[in-house]
Amino acid sequence: MIVPVILCGGSGTRLWPVSRESYPKQFLPLAGEKSLLQATVGRLKGLDGVLPPLLMANDQHRFLVAEQIRALGSGQLGILLEPLARSTAPAVACAALHLLPRYPEALLLVMPADHTMADIAGFQRAVRRGVPLARSGAMVTFGILPDRPEIGYGYIRRGSPLAGEEANPDGDDTSDGMPVFAVDRFVEKPDLDNARRFLAAGDHYWNSGMFLFRADRYLEELERFVPAIPAACRLALAGGGEDPDFLRLERDAFAASPTDSIDYAVMERTERGVVIPIDVGWNDVGSWSSLWTKGGRDADDNVIVGDVVEKDVAGCYLRSEGKLLTAVGIRDQAVVVTPDAVFVSTMDRVQEVKDIVARLKAAGRREAVIHRTAFRPWGSFETLNAAHRFQVKRITVRPGASL
Amino acid sequence: MIVPVILCGGSGTRLWPVSRESYPKQFLPLAGEKSLLQATVGRLKGLDGVLPPLLMANDQHRFLVAEQIRALGSGQLGILLEPLARSTAPAVACAALHLLPRYPEALLLVMPADHTMADIAGFQRAVRRGVPLARSGAMVTFGILPDRPEIGYGYIRRGSPLAGEEANPDGDDTSDGMPVFAVDRFVEKPDLDNARRFLAAGDHYWNSGMFLFRADRYLEELERFVPAIPAACRLALAGGGEDPDFLRLERDAFAASPTDSIDYAVMERTERGVVIPIDVGWNDVGSWSSLWTKGGRDADDNVIVGDVVEKDVAGCYLRSEGKLLTAVGIRDQAVVVTPDAVFVSTMDRVQEVKDIVARLKAAGRREAVIHRTAFRPWGSFETLNAAHRFQVKRITVRPGASL
Repeated sequence: MIVPVILCGGSGTRLWPVSRESYPKQFLPLAGEKSLLQATVGRLKGLDGVLPPLLMANDQHRFLVAEQIRALGSGQLGILLEPLARSTAPAVACAALHLLPRYPEALLLVMPADHTMADIAGFQRAVRRGVPLARSGAMVTFGILPDRPEIGYGYIRRGSPLAGEEANPDGDDTSDGMPVFAVDRFVEKPDLDNARRFLAAGDHYWNSGMFLFRADRYLEELERFVPAIPAACRLALAGGGEDPDFLRLERDAFAASPTDSIDYAVMERTERGVVIPIDVGWNDVGSWSSLWTKGGRDADDNVIVGDVVEKDVAGCYLRSEGKLLTAVGIRDQAVVVTPDAVFVSTMDRVQEVKDIVARLKAAGRREAVIHRTAFRPWGSFETLNAAHRFQVKRITVRPGASL
Repeated sequence: MIVPVILCGGSGTRLWPVSRESYPKQFLPLAGEKSLLQATVGRLKGLDGVLPPLLMANDQHRFLVAEQIRALGSGQLGILLEPLARSTAPAVACAALHLLPRYPEALLLVMPADHTMADIAGFQRAVRRGVPLARSGAMVTFGILPDRPEIGYGYIRRGSPLAGEEANPDGDDTSDGMPVFAVDRFVEKPDLDNARRFLAAGDHYWNSGMFLFRADRYLEELERFVPAIPAACRLALAGGGEDPDFLRLERDAFAASPTDSIDYAVMERTERGVVIPIDVGWNDVGSWSSLWTKGGRDADDNVIVGDVVEKDVAGCYLRSEGKLLTAVGIRDQAVVVTPDAVFVSTMDRVQEVKDIVARLKAAGRREAVIHRTAFRPWGSFETLNAAHRFQVKRITVRPGASL
């Protein structure tokens, strides 16, 4: 029995101005018709033994999560509200503590709500591959096969392959020809030289932030390595409340928890870490350049979304939400247009949008936090998708073409 | 006695998306609080013997012209509507034919409505310098002293300097130390090599499209060189009409006129052409790059108008009308934002905005022609200026500066 634990935190300023603090990227349909959160939930459809998800959300986003899940119609086990951010280890500890008495045998499948995946069947095979391992006590993570020397991600270095009974503890072969490895170690974001070495060596994977383990095993390991986390989480749950829509944590108790990620708190220290390499068209949607990299570029290396008219543009991500964007002659840039704000950047510096947002916040600018009042395409799921199902009215003018 | 004849034609697509066919640049406050047309009228204030202007306008812009002149409160001699475009020679012929019986001694001062000038006193000195010459029958034009090897303008090559009584036919010295020259010839837009030669030689001036001559002399010369023009214009005026607000031309008669500019029809052929060189901070406002060139650049060579937040941007023209524009790391570009359209271009290719507009027109796109219905800051002169008197809320983030 698998319980998806979907992490809906994330402030999403790196995709400003489309994503804003009050409405971050996981709630937006940035790749396809569903929001990233909805696509994450949908990714498990058809997999055996999967219960509806438990959702971990920031308090301020609770209605967005609730509405988007309600609109899917597939149910959920609860929406657990984090009164403040304490990273992933405490969030999943609360999830485990909440679920354990109700589903003692549950495997937790931890998934960030703001990633995309092209090959869902491949992902489901990997989850199936991990189930018997997790059931027998392994702490499973999924490592993304890198296709470039990315310096923006952490890496996982694999150790020895698991073999025979260890790899297939139940005896029946669910391996699907998929190799699994012990985790050797987690590696911080590398410099370019190291990222190239990792890629060439073939023994490093990107850390996807997805995990599969038994709720009790996770709590055992956490108890060993950072006991202050489960201690704080028990108090936060006990002091919290439950109403028909949300599960709440007691703020002060939760605030007392150390801030720590699952990687740091558990995965780097456990002796039972296992990595399953996957190659499933994964994208962390972490910046405008990552949407460009994975966005289905055209012959001119452009990704164009929305109402765009361009002439001799190459290597660009051009996105407009509902108004006309025109461009001449630019190279290797991102241009993102919303009804109340425009962002233009060279592609190699799109991450610096965070500096713009920080400065806007410091200046008390509304645009840093919320969308324009008149612009609420995502007031509910239905209108959200209607507004974002853009007609791409694209006109390309070739250099030298007669008009 | 001087009658300003102000040419308000011009479709203004080169400053799209701010300027549109239905509301082109001469009616917009692109440099200062008044529209370019209003600034043109105001440029003659304080000059002796100047009557209110006669305005030549496209039929579709008649209310814009009328309202902007009404708002100035300084009156006009008439708004003469061109039912279709026939270039400047027929337009000014109609003006001359209309004015001659009413003001037989009138000097016509022909001025395009869509240029700007920084040194108004200098311009007025040049007009005063031209008055006695024009009165004695010269066909005076004003040549702009070039400050760069511009290939986008036509040039006027000067001939011999006028001296003594010829230069000052009235005997009294109004020369103000200002030399005047016979016109040697008009030169089409040159290539860069020739433009550099012209600049180095110092004997070529930019053709500003401004003229000063007696109405009767203009008609005499036109009668000699292109008699079909005054013939058509007489019929157009006779068949037209006059109501309290507008003077109208009979369409078919006017359509029968050859299409010709004053330069071609008269100035290149007359023996009495005179050029007065002026250095008055003239700008034809012909493109976004010309607004950048003359726009008062900051230390980073940027011209920034409106609500803009930028980080490490240089050599750029950034203009936003009423919504937030943000930019990171870009160089030598123009970015122009209006409520319904965005234009991004490398600075050296901003002229190609005309290709974008042509393509939009071909596709039947409203944005090519009119502003968004909800966006009518210039419904009247007052709201126009209120909407365009931007507060520049600029925030600059230096590279390496801590946020």
